[in-house]
Amino acid sequence: MASDKIPLATVRRLCTYRRFLEKVRQVGKERTSSMEIGEYTGNPAFKVRKDLNFLGEVGVVGRGYQVSELIDHIATNLGLDRARKCVLVGAGSLGTAVIRFFADLDESYEVVAGFDVDERKVGKSISGVDILPVSKLRETVKKKGVEVGLITVPAANAQETADLMVKAGIKGLLNFAPVILDVPEGTVKRDMDFIFEIETLSYLVGK
Amino acid sequence: MASDKIPLATVRRLCTYRRFLEKVRQVGKERTSSMEIGEYTGNPAFKVRKDLNFLGEVGVVGRGYQVSELIDHIATNLGLDRARKCVLVGAGSLGTAVIRFFADLDESYEVVAGFDVDERKVGKSISGVDILPVSKLRETVKKKGVEVGLITVPAANAQETADLMVKAGIKGLLNFAPVILDVPEGTVKRDMDFIFEIETLSYLVGK
Repeated sequence: MASDKIPLATVRRLCTYRRFLEKVRQVGKERTSSMEIGEYTGNPAFKVRKDLNFLGEVGVVGRGYQVSELIDHIATNLGLDRARKCVLVGAGSLGTAVIRFFADLDESYEVVAGFDVDERKVGKSISGVDILPVSKLRETVKKKGVEVGLITVPAANAQETADLMVKAGIKGLLNFAPVILDVPEGTVKRDMDFIFEIETLSYLVGK
Repeated sequence: MASDKIPLATVRRLCTYRRFLEKVRQVGKERTSSMEIGEYTGNPAFKVRKDLNFLGEVGVVGRGYQVSELIDHIATNLGLDRARKCVLVGAGSLGTAVIRFFADLDESYEVVAGFDVDERKVGKSISGVDILPVSKLRETVKKKGVEVGLITVPAANAQETADLMVKAGIKGLLNFAPVILDVPEGTVKRDMDFIFEIETLSYLVGK
């Protein structure tokens, strides 16, 4: 069986492979190879094979991989095979866009509710997601089994929002505010930091 | 003087240090240390010193760093010391949020125009940014010296949008669509990929 701890860089490449495989499946292809996966995703074939080895035995040497099987293998091992419930705090322009983004996907992320401190936003519905007062956060998280919190508040309010989410029992935070969040052990976070990426891009584009 | 090529991981940490330093400056502090920078940003002090060494000589051993000087050093070396002109293609919900996000910052990124194929969006103004037909992209890029292209179209249109931007002379792409873009050599890209981050988060949160 697969290892319990897959290195993060491998996890990220496996997500990319899975995306490629979904595309391949869509066009009706049934088999693929580490070479093909590598070419599309920009990785050498040996690295693809090494990454896939973390999933336990898949594929037969010299015969490549069965596409659907490999998709399932990756999904199961990364825990992508079941729906994750999310809440979002900060139903402004960015929060609205993020709710719509997830609503448009047939992926397994369900935003079960949005929250805002602004009374004018409370009571609204965005793509079928109700916006509730922040005071209802804890209750909603418990009742619905929410695992992921999306933070789309202004930078100045991001840390307090993270604290609220953690207190409410949320284990994973996806932070869109350009702030380095301080979270307790046992809580995981990822940043969607526009500034950070555009600064990196500025360097790459040249002075 | 500073090295021409700074490793990407160092660039990203330097951006984080700079953000911390801006905070420190805001509260009126004039000096800081590699230890302090490291503590806030989650890096060991020796790594902070090693990263800062890429900028040439800054700070005096045992006396730490002068905050404003260090901010300038980082900005100059990463090319963050001058305004970058951006255009955005895809003025839907996400594009609108991204335009507003950059308009609210006093950072040096100016979205000079937005573009869309949808005639109902053309002619609108979002936070003072005019939405133009895509046919005007090339002309705008040339006239205004645009360096960065923000891609906020649906996944299915992301590659053709990237191709248009590259043809128009844009050197750096910030892609918000959950698609792996194929770009020619000499063009750089960074992804703001919600799905990718939430998948990584799903794995980290646990099965």
